[in-house]
Amino acid sequence: MSNEELMRVAIEAAVENVKNGGGPFGAVIAKKGEIVSVGVNRVTANNDPTAHAEVSAIRAACAELGTFDLSGCEIFTSCEPCPMCLGAIYWAHLDKIYYGCSKKDAADAGFDDSMIYDELALPMEGRMKPVEKLLSDEAMSSFDAWREAEDRVEY
Amino acid sequence: MSNEELMRVAIEAAVENVKNGGGPFGAVIAKKGEIVSVGVNRVTANNDPTAHAEVSAIRAACAELGTFDLSGCEIFTSCEPCPMCLGAIYWAHLDKIYYGCSKKDAADAGFDDSMIYDELALPMEGRMKPVEKLLSDEAMSSFDAWREAEDRVEY
Repeated sequence: MSNEELMRVAIEAAVENVKNGGGPFGAVIAKKGEIVSVGVNRVTANNDPTAHAEVSAIRAACAELGTFDLSGCEIFTSCEPCPMCLGAIYWAHLDKIYYGCSKKDAADAGFDDSMIYDELALPMEGRMKPVEKLLSDEAMSSFDAWREAEDRVEY
Repeated sequence: MSNEELMRVAIEAAVENVKNGGGPFGAVIAKKGEIVSVGVNRVTANNDPTAHAEVSAIRAACAELGTFDLSGCEIFTSCEPCPMCLGAIYWAHLDKIYYGCSKKDAADAGFDDSMIYDELALPMEGRMKPVEKLLSDEAMSSFDAWREAEDRVEY
């Protein structure tokens, strides 16, 4: 399928999802022009604030391909990804992002993630969300255990 | 439970998770000092790059409480959240973040998310990850459908 055809599948999934009680977002993950997965926004429908279209598509593609590394795949999303979804796209090692609507279009429709973008760009102590460091010495035992684990799978 | 006790549960979950083939990260979500959920990093174990401890804990807490809004809850995480998890924390409306290890401790152990933080702070055209706008006019049909939906659940 062409890039335009793949994007149209993402857009149609977004429109269809609204009819099914979901949010107006859809995403397709493709490998060499073939669809691997389709994801839609099920935040309110599934009570899962992480169930954005891109995250849903990534989880489905990884399940389909049996891997946590989607190198060689691309994502087609009906709207520019939020910081959470961008983070997920980087962790999943997707090669390229195609998007339809912009952040501004999303904000106009009531989905404004500019506050999150602004917060992430600030140093921790300047953010609106309260953050506190706690038991940092004891917490190092997690990484000590990791370094000692002989069967660890790096990623 | 005290904040220190809640953080110790997150740290112990991280250590235990390494023994179970997972990554060295644990998180607890608590409401008024009572544990709602515990999450651990199952990225490689479950083939899910989004299965960081904080995302896992958020999903579990929302399932437990039957809501997509965790206002009134706090998260205790063994390590400073990555951009994906921070995004998820904002979307879930958690009140406060307590963390143990720092981003630098994580990087020293081989989990470096500084590239993702750097990328998110850049304008899209300056990022390493290729991004392309495609069919933006057609994509607006998703938000048109949303505006026309009478039963939409805003969030």
